[in-house]
Amino acid sequence: MTIDPSGLRTGIGTDVHALREGVEMHCAGLHFPDEPVGLAGHSDGDVAAHALCDALLGAAGLGDMGSNYGTREPRWSGASGVSFLAETARRLASAGWRPVNAGVQVIGQHPRMTARRAEAEWVLSEALGAPVSVSATTTDRLGALGRGEGVAAVATALIVRAQRE
Amino acid sequence: MTIDPSGLRTGIGTDVHALREGVEMHCAGLHFPDEPVGLAGHSDGDVAAHALCDALLGAAGLGDMGSNYGTREPRWSGASGVSFLAETARRLASAGWRPVNAGVQVIGQHPRMTARRAEAEWVLSEALGAPVSVSATTTDRLGALGRGEGVAAVATALIVRAQRE
Amino acid sequence: MTIDPSGLRTGIGTDVHALREGVEMHCAGLHFPDEPVGLAGHSDGDVAAHALCDALLGAAGLGDMGSNYGTREPRWSGASGVSFLAETARRLASAGWRPVNAGVQVIGQHPRMTARRAEAEWVLSEALGAPVSVSATTTDRLGALGRGEGVAAVATALIVRAQRE
Repeated sequence: MTIDPSGLRTGIGTDVHALREGVEMHCAGLHFPDEPVGLAGHSDGDVAAHALCDALLGAAGLGDMGSNYGTREPRWSGASGVSFLAETARRLASAGWRPVNAGVQVIGQHPRMTARRAEAEWVLSEALGAPVSVSATTTDRLGALGRGEGVAAVATALIVRAQRE
Repeated sequence: MTIDPSGLRTGIGTDVHALREGVEMHCAGLHFPDEPVGLAGHSDGDVAAHALCDALLGAAGLGDMGSNYGTREPRWSGASGVSFLAETARRLASAGWRPVNAGVQVIGQHPRMTARRAEAEWVLSEALGAPVSVSATTTDRLGALGRGEGVAAVATALIVRAQRE
Repeated sequence: MTIDPSGLRTGIGTDVHALREGVEMHCAGLHFPDEPVGLAGHSDGDVAAHALCDALLGAAGLGDMGSNYGTREPRWSGASGVSFLAETARRLASAGWRPVNAGVQVIGQHPRMTARRAEAEWVLSEALGAPVSVSATTTDRLGALGRGEGVAAVATALIVRAQRE
């Protein structure tokens, strides 16, 4: 198969949520039961999944998390990051787009992603239906993220106009 | 049309400007007359347009905002974000590149992008001559952006070597 | 040559290191002997090279800096950013990927990149074996980066599955 480059699109997305004690940690599609802090938010606070959704929706010209998943809609209250990503994949498909791949980096002191990076990639790739890479880094203890006040994620996505079978 | 992937290029850009009272708010190609604060800067402070320009110039290997639009050149003093983006499109075309698409996310407490996202996309896409997606998010009240001290933008672009007609 | 879009991949990476007096400044593949501060870190602290490595490794689904270059391995203690980037290029090639291009933006008060941007692009492109763009910006004096506590970099990369000769 060959392509017209005008059928390709790139997108970018970021997200930040505050860390709170007594909140379950959900990040990059995984639950981290041993983390002492979790991500606050109307939904499960999964910054990595949210950044991916914004990158994908933006690439497709379909708006962003806010315009797609209004916080006033009960359906999305407490929704998991994986469910947002799967729904985003459906909305792209409905609009005639197919994800090629996506990548997301989690930036902060929590959660400890290293041991579970491959698992996160598997879960997010399943939800999207295309390869999703996950990486992690810190801000070298600088700023709000370095003080453990919150966690950020930055994502990019490449999509292509779906071909007829 | 088919392509050699070596004719594709991706680029990334970010920008941050401080919020100031008594300054008109220009962001993502739009004027927000009702915002109580605006973006400070030598030009109109449009972080979204500036991030897009850096992403596009970088993709094309043409330098960055600083090397293209020196702050000492009167021509660019007070220039609008849209005019920078249109000029960037011209410089890419002169160098043999064509934008495929670009996306930008505005990060901060101001301006209220939601109601005017589609309008911003239209204005920026017209200036670039290719689809530009606009999204918006916050830092969940964290850090300098969360305290309303400034606004950031992060952008990505995909370009392709122009084909001869 | 024509391509299957499923052979393309995009990736993103960021990095932050603290600025310290009495440390040599290495950034974007260059040594800045006249800078009064340098980037702290286990290696040479080259945030630009590290962000590029994360973007490239993520695009290829090969993990990240942490999973590839463990800080406990003596081989990587004090390693230069350029050596990380060259080794990353080798790992991509071994896994059947070829970089198309990459771009990185350095964000902070140091080093003064402007006069040496083209030189940095040359050094990093040589190490990667593909065009690398370098840009620089500031946070308009906001936040930890604006106060000169550290330097950040954000990078993107486009790669393609290598074709058999």
